Amino acid sequence: MTPEQKLAGAGLTLPPPHPLVGTFALVAQRGDVLYVSGHGAFADGEPIHRGKLGADLTTAEGKEAAQAVMLALLGSVRDHIGGLDRVNRVLKVLVFVNSTPEFSEHHLVANGSTEVLATAFGKERLPARSAIGVSSLPLGFAVEVEAIVEIAPAVP
Amino acid sequence: MTPEQKLAGAGLTLPPPHPLVGTFALVAQRGDVLYVSGHGAFADGEPIHRGKLGADLTTAEGKEAAQAVMLALLGSVRDHIGGLDRVNRVLKVLVFVNSTPEFSEHHLVANGSTEVLATAFGKERLPARSAIGVSSLPLGFAVEVEAIVEIAPAVP
Amino acid sequence: MTPEQKLAGAGLTLPPPHPLVGTFALVAQRGDVLYVSGHGAFADGEPIHRGKLGADLTTAEGKEAAQAVMLALLGSVRDHIGGLDRVNRVLKVLVFVNSTPEFSEHHLVANGSTEVLATAFGKERLPARSAIGVSSLPLGFAVEVEAIVEIAPAVP
Repeated sequence: MTPEQKLAGAGLTLPPPHPLVGTFALVAQRGDVLYVSGHGAFADGEPIHRGKLGADLTTAEGKEAAQAVMLALLGSVRDHIGGLDRVNRVLKVLVFVNSTPEFSEHHLVANGSTEVLATAFGKERLPARSAIGVSSLPLGFAVEVEAIVEIAPAVP
Repeated sequence: MTPEQKLAGAGLTLPPPHPLVGTFALVAQRGDVLYVSGHGAFADGEPIHRGKLGADLTTAEGKEAAQAVMLALLGSVRDHIGGLDRVNRVLKVLVFVNSTPEFSEHHLVANGSTEVLATAFGKERLPARSAIGVSSLPLGFAVEVEAIVEIAPAVP
Repeated sequence: MTPEQKLAGAGLTLPPPHPLVGTFALVAQRGDVLYVSGHGAFADGEPIHRGKLGADLTTAEGKEAAQAVMLALLGSVRDHIGGLDRVNRVLKVLVFVNSTPEFSEHHLVANGSTEVLATAFGKERLPARSAIGVSSLPLGFAVEVEAIVEIAPAVP
């Protein structure tokens, strides 16, 4: 099964292409490594899953946001390389959680992102991860995620 | 034209060397990749462009800060490799914006950094980017930027 | 002397393995590069060095936290590769400091982490570094640190 099929089996689908909200590239490639920009979650071109953990959103809602953001990020990876079956391993993710000064469950929120990776690529290929609380995020997003991804060489 | 000449054509110049305000290296090289430390903006050795977006600075002022910080960062890259014409591509930038909890235009602030890169290296070589709001920054900086840079091998 | 012996000479020891508090890997390896997850400081399985710089902890206490966190991170590196003598260089560290909006000495806090690296690997191999203020951290940690590490190939 492809990673996309494994995600579909868990009821998860990749969203349409992520809007580009500034002067940068969604993905920058060097050899077999992709540097993937910070992503948020959008629906119909509008930002969704907005607000602050510890004030507006519960940890469970933040985890849902983190899941949606990782699906958006994987959508950009797929658009760049053609299909997720070329992903060897997501090496590193950095999960930014829009949080109050008192919030302390960023790691539980971030699981929403990395559980998507466990489903798509297997638990033995989970990435290194950091999860931190940020004072605010672009467009009021609750969660933003960036990643470094190792891919297999393109078949010539 | 060299990247330095393209910057000059846009009225932009690289500042004097960035002070080293701690126990670290401004640039760490592995092969053809440079890991560049978080930079701020200085003038005459003193920090400039300080304050918080959403309180002390407008988005336009934050964007100016982000421009100055990227010029400082490129100055350190130039000092490390001798000239910006050896830069193949800035692969990734992470833009930290000193922000109130309500601020939501970090992406517009960050454009101040990446538009410098578009000028110097071309829009087709723009980096991946994340922009986030941080609660505070060293020395009260409004913006801090770090980068990963791919360079060409040195001519033997 | 091995890096472990140099640390011991400075009265520093690597702690027991870091708990895994989520769905991720403490270290993800690609060739000779290790991506190391965000670490905190634990004692007897419980988080220590908690609180906020600018409110609960002095800069000196934050620096102690940063030292403890780097020792925890190096413990995970050692567990992954067998011994710190295989570390060529820590290339990059990102130091997250749990801070009030007014705090401005993140660079002094972060020195607690990178001075450990100077002791273990020498000042000529210091990493690139960013230090930022975050609104909050998992489990209330005062400091979290992630790293990218270059290692020597394993002896066959």
